[in-house]
Amino acid sequence: MDSERLIELLEKVRGEKITIADAIARLRHLPFEDLGFAKIDHHRALRQGFPEVILGQGKDAREIVAIVRSMRRRKMNILVTRVSADQVAQLKTLTTGLTYHSVARAVTWVGNPIKITGKGTVLVVCAGTSDIPVAEEAALTAAMMGNRVEKLFDVGVAGIHRLWDNHSRLDAASVLIVVAGMEGALPSVVAGLISKPVIAVPTSVGYGASFNGLSALLGMLNSCAAGVTVVNIDNGFGAGFAASLINRV
Amino acid sequence: MDSERLIELLEKVRGEKITIADAIARLRHLPFEDLGFAKIDHHRALRQGFPEVILGQGKDAREIVAIVRSMRRRKMNILVTRVSADQVAQLKTLTTGLTYHSVARAVTWVGNPIKITGKGTVLVVCAGTSDIPVAEEAALTAAMMGNRVEKLFDVGVAGIHRLWDNHSRLDAASVLIVVAGMEGALPSVVAGLISKPVIAVPTSVGYGASFNGLSALLGMLNSCAAGVTVVNIDNGFGAGFAASLINRV
Amino acid sequence: MDSERLIELLEKVRGEKITIADAIARLRHLPFEDLGFAKIDHHRALRQGFPEVILGQGKDAREIVAIVRSMRRRKMNILVTRVSADQVAQLKTLTTGLTYHSVARAVTWVGNPIKITGKGTVLVVCAGTSDIPVAEEAALTAAMMGNRVEKLFDVGVAGIHRLWDNHSRLDAASVLIVVAGMEGALPSVVAGLISKPVIAVPTSVGYGASFNGLSALLGMLNSCAAGVTVVNIDNGFGAGFAASLINRV
Amino acid sequence: MDSERLIELLEKVRGEKITIADAIARLRHLPFEDLGFAKIDHHRALRQGFPEVILGQGKDAREIVAIVRSMRRRKMNILVTRVSADQVAQLKTLTTGLTYHSVARAVTWVGNPIKITGKGTVLVVCAGTSDIPVAEEAALTAAMMGNRVEKLFDVGVAGIHRLWDNHSRLDAASVLIVVAGMEGALPSVVAGLISKPVIAVPTSVGYGASFNGLSALLGMLNSCAAGVTVVNIDNGFGAGFAASLINRV
Amino acid sequence: MDSERLIELLEKVRGEKITIADAIARLRHLPFEDLGFAKIDHHRALRQGFPEVILGQGKDAREIVAIVRSMRRRKMNILVTRVSADQVAQLKTLTTGLTYHSVARAVTWVGNPIKITGKGTVLVVCAGTSDIPVAEEAALTAAMMGNRVEKLFDVGVAGIHRLWDNHSRLDAASVLIVVAGMEGALPSVVAGLISKPVIAVPTSVGYGASFNGLSALLGMLNSCAAGVTVVNIDNGFGAGFAASLINRV
Amino acid sequence: MDSERLIELLEKVRGEKITIADAIARLRHLPFEDLGFAKIDHHRALRQGFPEVILGQGKDAREIVAIVRSMRRRKMNILVTRVSADQVAQLKTLTTGLTYHSVARAVTWVGNPIKITGKGTVLVVCAGTSDIPVAEEAALTAAMMGNRVEKLFDVGVAGIHRLWDNHSRLDAASVLIVVAGMEGALPSVVAGLISKPVIAVPTSVGYGASFNGLSALLGMLNSCAAGVTVVNIDNGFGAGFAASLINRV
Amino acid sequence: MDSERLIELLEKVRGEKITIADAIARLRHLPFEDLGFAKIDHHRALRQGFPEVILGQGKDAREIVAIVRSMRRRKMNILVTRVSADQVAQLKTLTTGLTYHSVARAVTWVGNPIKITGKGTVLVVCAGTSDIPVAEEAALTAAMMGNRVEKLFDVGVAGIHRLWDNHSRLDAASVLIVVAGMEGALPSVVAGLISKPVIAVPTSVGYGASFNGLSALLGMLNSCAAGVTVVNIDNGFGAGFAASLINRV
Amino acid sequence: MDSERLIELLEKVRGEKITIADAIARLRHLPFEDLGFAKIDHHRALRQGFPEVILGQGKDAREIVAIVRSMRRRKMNILVTRVSADQVAQLKTLTTGLTYHSVARAVTWVGNPIKITGKGTVLVVCAGTSDIPVAEEAALTAAMMGNRVEKLFDVGVAGIHRLWDNHSRLDAASVLIVVAGMEGALPSVVAGLISKPVIAVPTSVGYGASFNGLSALLGMLNSCAAGVTVVNIDNGFGAGFAASLINRV
Repeated sequence: MDSERLIELLEKVRGEKITIADAIARLRHLPFEDLGFAKIDHHRALRQGFPEVILGQGKDAREIVAIVRSMRRRKMNILVTRVSADQVAQLKTLTTGLTYHSVARAVTWVGNPIKITGKGTVLVVCAGTSDIPVAEEAALTAAMMGNRVEKLFDVGVAGIHRLWDNHSRLDAASVLIVVAGMEGALPSVVAGLISKPVIAVPTSVGYGASFNGLSALLGMLNSCAAGVTVVNIDNGFGAGFAASLINRV
Repeated sequence: MDSERLIELLEKVRGEKITIADAIARLRHLPFEDLGFAKIDHHRALRQGFPEVILGQGKDAREIVAIVRSMRRRKMNILVTRVSADQVAQLKTLTTGLTYHSVARAVTWVGNPIKITGKGTVLVVCAGTSDIPVAEEAALTAAMMGNRVEKLFDVGVAGIHRLWDNHSRLDAASVLIVVAGMEGALPSVVAGLISKPVIAVPTSVGYGASFNGLSALLGMLNSCAAGVTVVNIDNGFGAGFAASLINRV
Repeated sequence: MDSERLIELLEKVRGEKITIADAIARLRHLPFEDLGFAKIDHHRALRQGFPEVILGQGKDAREIVAIVRSMRRRKMNILVTRVSADQVAQLKTLTTGLTYHSVARAVTWVGNPIKITGKGTVLVVCAGTSDIPVAEEAALTAAMMGNRVEKLFDVGVAGIHRLWDNHSRLDAASVLIVVAGMEGALPSVVAGLISKPVIAVPTSVGYGASFNGLSALLGMLNSCAAGVTVVNIDNGFGAGFAASLINRV
Repeated sequence: MDSERLIELLEKVRGEKITIADAIARLRHLPFEDLGFAKIDHHRALRQGFPEVILGQGKDAREIVAIVRSMRRRKMNILVTRVSADQVAQLKTLTTGLTYHSVARAVTWVGNPIKITGKGTVLVVCAGTSDIPVAEEAALTAAMMGNRVEKLFDVGVAGIHRLWDNHSRLDAASVLIVVAGMEGALPSVVAGLISKPVIAVPTSVGYGASFNGLSALLGMLNSCAAGVTVVNIDNGFGAGFAASLINRV
Repeated sequence: MDSERLIELLEKVRGEKITIADAIARLRHLPFEDLGFAKIDHHRALRQGFPEVILGQGKDAREIVAIVRSMRRRKMNILVTRVSADQVAQLKTLTTGLTYHSVARAVTWVGNPIKITGKGTVLVVCAGTSDIPVAEEAALTAAMMGNRVEKLFDVGVAGIHRLWDNHSRLDAASVLIVVAGMEGALPSVVAGLISKPVIAVPTSVGYGASFNGLSALLGMLNSCAAGVTVVNIDNGFGAGFAASLINRV
Repeated sequence: MDSERLIELLEKVRGEKITIADAIARLRHLPFEDLGFAKIDHHRALRQGFPEVILGQGKDAREIVAIVRSMRRRKMNILVTRVSADQVAQLKTLTTGLTYHSVARAVTWVGNPIKITGKGTVLVVCAGTSDIPVAEEAALTAAMMGNRVEKLFDVGVAGIHRLWDNHSRLDAASVLIVVAGMEGALPSVVAGLISKPVIAVPTSVGYGASFNGLSALLGMLNSCAAGVTVVNIDNGFGAGFAASLINRV
Repeated sequence: MDSERLIELLEKVRGEKITIADAIARLRHLPFEDLGFAKIDHHRALRQGFPEVILGQGKDAREIVAIVRSMRRRKMNILVTRVSADQVAQLKTLTTGLTYHSVARAVTWVGNPIKITGKGTVLVVCAGTSDIPVAEEAALTAAMMGNRVEKLFDVGVAGIHRLWDNHSRLDAASVLIVVAGMEGALPSVVAGLISKPVIAVPTSVGYGASFNGLSALLGMLNSCAAGVTVVNIDNGFGAGFAASLINRV
Repeated sequence: MDSERLIELLEKVRGEKITIADAIARLRHLPFEDLGFAKIDHHRALRQGFPEVILGQGKDAREIVAIVRSMRRRKMNILVTRVSADQVAQLKTLTTGLTYHSVARAVTWVGNPIKITGKGTVLVVCAGTSDIPVAEEAALTAAMMGNRVEKLFDVGVAGIHRLWDNHSRLDAASVLIVVAGMEGALPSVVAGLISKPVIAVPTSVGYGASFNGLSALLGMLNSCAAGVTVVNIDNGFGAGFAASLINRV
């Protein structure tokens, strides 16, 4: 029930055109959302300046363009994740004005300037060069959601002094996203060095007994360092989104 | 090298009792921590008023008492997690002054009044009555770490209107810990209703194909709602700790 | 908001004691259930004559008795599932009037005579004698929910002529619950013989590579016979409940 | 033994051309089906107006055409499932008169008008847009088997108010097929809202720890809502078939 | 239909008391087994001199005694497998005349002298001393089924010369049962040395990544030596039974 | 040491050209095979008229041709398994005289007429049409190894009367190879009907929770029918080889 | 054939009591070991001063004592691993002179003084206090096999500065055994700091998604630091043994 | 802080230009590596004459060339592992002077003659011809790192006499790398024959229940022969690297 219909109903009550019992009965059968309960509006995030997010994977390029166009009309910022090179090639023939992030495998359109609303800095750390695409997806997501983002890449635990040399950057961050494949040990080491929330992102980097990221995932879930929470394998977007929520607490 | 030894070394440099080359050589062989690099001090959390945490599981009651006594002397608050009924019985014969939390399976000692340093409220939500011990462990941990904590229990997705009726409490929280076993669907539903960080805790509640919490864990990692991060099965402590860090961002 | 409060609100509208805008605002903040939307009442099943179900597993006998007493007062039929021998022994010392089903590991109390509201017969079939406890739980559940229930036990696929000899009983059923452990092949064979809904229940019966029922579960999910649906390992209750819903379609 | 041979045998008995003992011996060695025991006829489903079903996956297009032609001669309706775009392209060059359902990845031929023999409505619900192909396969199967079918798509648990707004449609259905990937939570929420049989279909939608649908499958098997039964991952056909059987109980 | 009823029916045909059409109709509705089709008699094995086999696991000692008594009356040899020490203790108080095989965890009663009907020798080989109980169960089963049985124990692959020294015994066997836990490599080595059927039995011996016999099972299934077939983990009985069938080919 | 060298050594002993101690020392250092211990000759199978077997998978066509040519010179029969269509196309350009078995995905060359040395008939049974390639590989292997082979295809458990109608063929076989994917139930049913060795071959036919044949494999290992042994997923060759060994016991 | 019999045979050759052809025939049928081929003697390890090792787990205390007595007579040092407290209690009543290592859960008897034959120092490192029993088993094994052994315990990656402070001890070792449960990250960090062989030992320490050591095992196998090799979960003995072999290269 | 800056700081101390307290404060904030702590230099391996190693997998050919050029300038030997045929083709068009190892799927450049610094011989053993690529990667790695390397290929356990015939080569090695797929039994047999460190490398060779090398991996971890350590599936490089470290102990 839209507000108009609710007003109309209540006016009928006031005008005694319907009984109160009838009014109650009709109220009960109105669609929920129409009552305008803002609390259950899942679009709330968007109203906080977050972009609309489209999962590109498995979507036809024309389908993506159609959604993008509809959003542009509403002047909403747009983040399309998990876009393949093929999709990008097609998108380029179909529309203009999009920005392509090849490492992050993402596409963006920024109609409204992004306002920094996150309190501190989100630091994205990754273990090896193969983990960078997932790390970049996380960084781009956090940036699109209005956070200052910094990156610290290729600081895996097998050469731990590189991490060491950067402890001041670890200390300076408000929230950390730590991306690693293989044994997934980096979040434990990072969380042992600082007292900030650490979001661990396992990646499918590795072979054999890495089982497409399962080893890294299990390693992170079993972290001996308190304060580590984990998202799905290769889920850079989810980590960036969660970090953004944390950075607004 | 303690500060005294470092001072002594530098005084020798100043007094030209050793060459600079020798000083450098000795600096290189000094133990790292002695240089006082605060940044790598893993006890930092404690200095922020956090309690000392002891994992009770697998420890002898006398061993626990010994650690507790040593901490009491240092006037540190203490949280002992995963304490069995047997251990509690033994602890009671060995020492006094401890507080026993039977549902949370924990023991505490509060020598310093706990100061509320967390910004908002940590809300602990759980799906079924069997999930309550894990939820209570999370709540107690967050409380011991200086947070306002509220609880919303037994609001599983099969009777989703109970969750609905409490959306104002969901909205009012700064950080949410959502505890569920079986299919682990509750965090997705909760995260779809609000825009706050949600820490999901799978529990080993269930039987058969729950595989001791694996189903709930996988469900939470695959949450269709962005903003959900996950900790290990039954890890109420880890969730409470992470929520505390988030509540200080 | 209970109906009284809603009536009161609408009366204020009618009496023009509040503006329509204010009424809308207040409506929006009322708890959902108070509006009395029957459709979201998860207790509906009970009003159809179904018993209240208590999962006995993990509950203290006194806790069970407390719930039972409260229900008796409401004259509701009661089914307690997964009750251990120890719990039964304690229950017997704590209260009277309960009926004990030792094979089904269940306890019942029937305050209202059970009316048969299911259309046809629910036939519970099981493969081996070790599967009988789960089969009996399914049968008891269906019976408590108002169905005619028949049983056909110990007709495993390795001696398939026993199943054969009973095809008229298979044909006569409206819904079939087929319980099997080990390789879990029986539901496929049964579903190949008849054109009725078959609910397959894997059991944890077996050893070694049965992996506590996983083999039977996978076998049933991969059934080459269309029309088979599956519930969790050892979930006789779930199968009986689903069969009851089907028997009312 | 065909009927002719059985008649011949019995005529010999009547004509006393063979002893009764010999007749019994010969009866014992006759092939079973020849006795015409209708009860073991697995084609029974077809006689109830169900279509002949061909699993397209892994079959050569010419092979499919051959089967289709043979059935057309028998005037049987035909449903070919899991047909790839390649197969469709080849089928179009090989024969005419088929109907192609690209989203459901299926092909049909309806020689006999489909009679609605199902009692109520089969409602197919799905969580996300990526789950639609499986949902459409389920819907098409149920429609081909003589059911009224309705669809309610893209009502995932992360935006649960969309499901809420449609509760009247949930209530109106006789049988529900609920399709979801990722964490597979939707069937639990749906089954908590209504008292009808719910067939849950996990899909392979997701990535990382979804393990090609395993997470959704486990989630559904562990559903905290009674009345949910589960079919194999991506098995839209199986769900549609089972719903059709249930809709005839 | 028992033979009497079939005779009666055919006599009616002969006496022309019923038409042939009626006779056919009645034949079609008779229960299958009553026709006495020996081919589908699953008790055939027993008539070949095989013992009746009772799975002791999970059975009450009184239940076992009842079955044993009934069989003794029929003068059938009896093999009870997977009998625990507790069950044995109870059996001893309940009945007499049974033979206890403590290593094989089995109980036997031999009313009819066992005739050797197997052609050659069944050789049971095992890798380590911890595998002996399973090996003894296999050996006892084969012996009870009328085979000459020999044993070659503790010849694991880590000390392969012990196996070497016994190649004449390997060569002399008709069928080999090879029992091993841990990595389960022994069947591959044995099958590489001889040209006889090898039945591999994985055992749950091991710890850690042996995963209760899964490693041995997988190793045996992946044997690089042709001619190896595998039974379930710890299934000595199944191996002995299969070897007996093979020894009669 | 070849025989010549051994003779030479012993002649030196006889001629007292070396001491006995020296002779022993030299014997100890001779390579094992040179002593001519026929018992450890892994080529024994070949001398029994078995063909040389080449695993085609992963081999270059030229590599296969080279091996084939070398064997032809030795007049050995040849079986190349797991040959892809690509490999076949290349083989046809490289050599002549080979026989191609497209369904069994194999290539053979028979230089010596195959003598039937197996005692009875090997019957290859399979559940569905998709299982036929594996079944044909088994049948071809057994035929190449000198067995009478019969086939009974498409007799899955969901239409069990087709199996029933063929029980005389089941009875007539000496060894049975039963091939099935999905839930893998067919071997249990077959083994329940007869008293002959049954080799079960799981196939990777299926989807979703079939996990590439794992479900069928587990089902077969947990068979409730004694006498079933199992080979690796899709291992038709292994089953045919094992059946050949059994058919010679 | 023992040496005597070989001498006797060669003497007959020399004395021309048997022909050379007969001698060859007899040589071929002699048991292999009797020829005294030292190279295949699996007891070689023992002759290098290694102790005899008995796996205590699953053995009766009397059985252990019998083996121990037999070895004492041969003056061999003895290491009994995986001895439970119960077994120890029984051993103490049965025999004297044994040394009990309660943390390592082992029993030793040293009849010959242990000579240090390992070149450098074996350093046993462990992550947490719960890993100490496995670490002590490794250390005791290496010590019993003649190595200098040092220990560095409780240096987990979450407090990495403790490891840092001990890098000189890491540098000084020849071989390192690194023991860790939970995420198993310690070996990667250690192997990144030094250039010595690192043997990683996963432990079953942890809960939930540690899956009894599987997570640690997978983490170690996927180590991003080259030079790490892995043994079975909780296999301290195996690590100590392998380190001893390495320390003799 | 580079040495220059440290010298400068200490000179200021000596010249009393800053107080000792200030010097300490500044020391504490200097980056760690700048202090020149050689012990934590992860490039140590390189200084011992080891080559720089590049993981080719997933890298662009131009990226590889860029790294190679930079290293050549530093006159470092180079090993690029896991290079595909496509990458090799591209590399050949981009640069010259590289050596291609097609079986080992690797590329090398040797600017400095490789000095043999390993003490003994590294023997690489493999089970089947399909395991050779992994074995060659191990052999090439060990050779590039300054070891004498020998190879013993195609000595699988199903034809164990071939292994036997080569025991003198096994005995002569200092360290053994044993590569096997399928059941992975070869390392156990080898380790039972000798007393040298054995590094086991599981390969993904096999099909069905080999689960891409999981079976071989589990088999090796459960080896009944002490002294076996294991690396990741197909990790020939890791084995070669570990063997090199061991060969320098």
